[in-house]
Amino acid sequence: MKYELYYWPSIQGRGEFVRLALEEGAADYVDVGRLPKSKGGGFEAIQRALGAPRGKVRPFAPPFLKAGHLVIAQTANILAFLGPRLDLVPDDEPSRLAAAQHQLTIADLVSEAHDTHHPISSALYYEDQKKEAGARTKVFRGERMPKYLGYFEDVLAGNARGKRRHAVGGAVTYVDLSLFQCLEGLAYAFPKAFARVTRKTPHLLELRELVRERPRIAAYLASPRRIPFNESGIFRRYPELDG
Amino acid sequence: MKYELYYWPSIQGRGEFVRLALEEGAADYVDVGRLPKSKGGGFEAIQRALGAPRGKVRPFAPPFLKAGHLVIAQTANILAFLGPRLDLVPDDEPSRLAAAQHQLTIADLVSEAHDTHHPISSALYYEDQKKEAGARTKVFRGERMPKYLGYFEDVLAGNARGKRRHAVGGAVTYVDLSLFQCLEGLAYAFPKAFARVTRKTPHLLELRELVRERPRIAAYLASPRRIPFNESGIFRRYPELDG
Repeated sequence: MKYELYYWPSIQGRGEFVRLALEEGAADYVDVGRLPKSKGGGFEAIQRALGAPRGKVRPFAPPFLKAGHLVIAQTANILAFLGPRLDLVPDDEPSRLAAAQHQLTIADLVSEAHDTHHPISSALYYEDQKKEAGARTKVFRGERMPKYLGYFEDVLAGNARGKRRHAVGGAVTYVDLSLFQCLEGLAYAFPKAFARVTRKTPHLLELRELVRERPRIAAYLASPRRIPFNESGIFRRYPELDG
Repeated sequence: MKYELYYWPSIQGRGEFVRLALEEGAADYVDVGRLPKSKGGGFEAIQRALGAPRGKVRPFAPPFLKAGHLVIAQTANILAFLGPRLDLVPDDEPSRLAAAQHQLTIADLVSEAHDTHHPISSALYYEDQKKEAGARTKVFRGERMPKYLGYFEDVLAGNARGKRRHAVGGAVTYVDLSLFQCLEGLAYAFPKAFARVTRKTPHLLELRELVRERPRIAAYLASPRRIPFNESGIFRRYPELDG
């Protein structure tokens, strides 16, 4: 199966969770937004697909994945679809439900991380909501980030079958890849807070290294396919928001 | 199968999307939080379950559902689990993926509706973030609510098989029930904005009536099992936020 990923070409964003799964799963895929315009790619290709005619299951927002005649949107839904096909989730229903559950909790974390710099509106500049961003980020750093990371630390610690370094089952799943991405993003955006909070999450830090060193992920991270973190994405480094 | 729903006893909240599915599906279920404390219910029962020992797939937050030995959290995940069992989603994979996708878009709408009154922190009072709530709600009313409702109006309009009044396939699914709940909530919280925006969404309004009149839903809504909307839930009526 050849997959087509549709996502904005200039940011990691929510698309990155899908990219990591496609890379680790050695999928045959095209990152449509990153193709040149002359080959039907680019920003415009994503916009065009979002304006698909009625009668199709048109996505509300990227990322979305074309797989044969299917168009699948919503990050967690895409990963639940890809997981079994790329051997990134165990076969049994309880494990699949647990993976989907964790991915949705990760999605909540990601939304909250985004809203630290855009608490009023995504359509306004950060500079126009800087004061509110400071207030929201203070709560995120002090309460929400420790709560989320503490929760996932407990998930790892409770999974003896995964040697306390996998979220679900005994091997790497798409959840582990997504946790890695969150850790990378939080470390980028809030280096001081991240260092402080993760002193209490040794298993998460171990998972981060373990995922980073997987051959396909390491090759991907070293390639031009990995877009660097930047101040247009979800995880942004504004020094005034760290602390 | 006997189901146990765990959710806060005093609000509709995210638990309501599960309650509506259980009711329409005529499921044998207990709403644990609403049982008297003497029968193992109440607020404390939910808190106790959240503190389950490590090694279990402990939920990050309610709602969660106990089904036999399974504990399933995250609203959209619970509904993806219940859908096939309660005949609230078609059998084929494309329909199930579409339903899951729509439910996740609804979850995004619900989060944004919540954040209108709590843009800085859920741990602070509304009164302590009233100014920011005004700014966020203005964007929600003017841009986000029309975008979400316009999107789902297009989904309905594009579904000829569902006679333009079902989101997926030819009959009621859990997505329709969830859309009904969103419409009820938005109409409660923002009556003026809702009236304005839904002038352009006739199919959604038709779906709302159609779901409301289904015998099991009508019986549920008229029963004491339906908690009234209130100013502790997701959809809150603060007249200063409507307009």
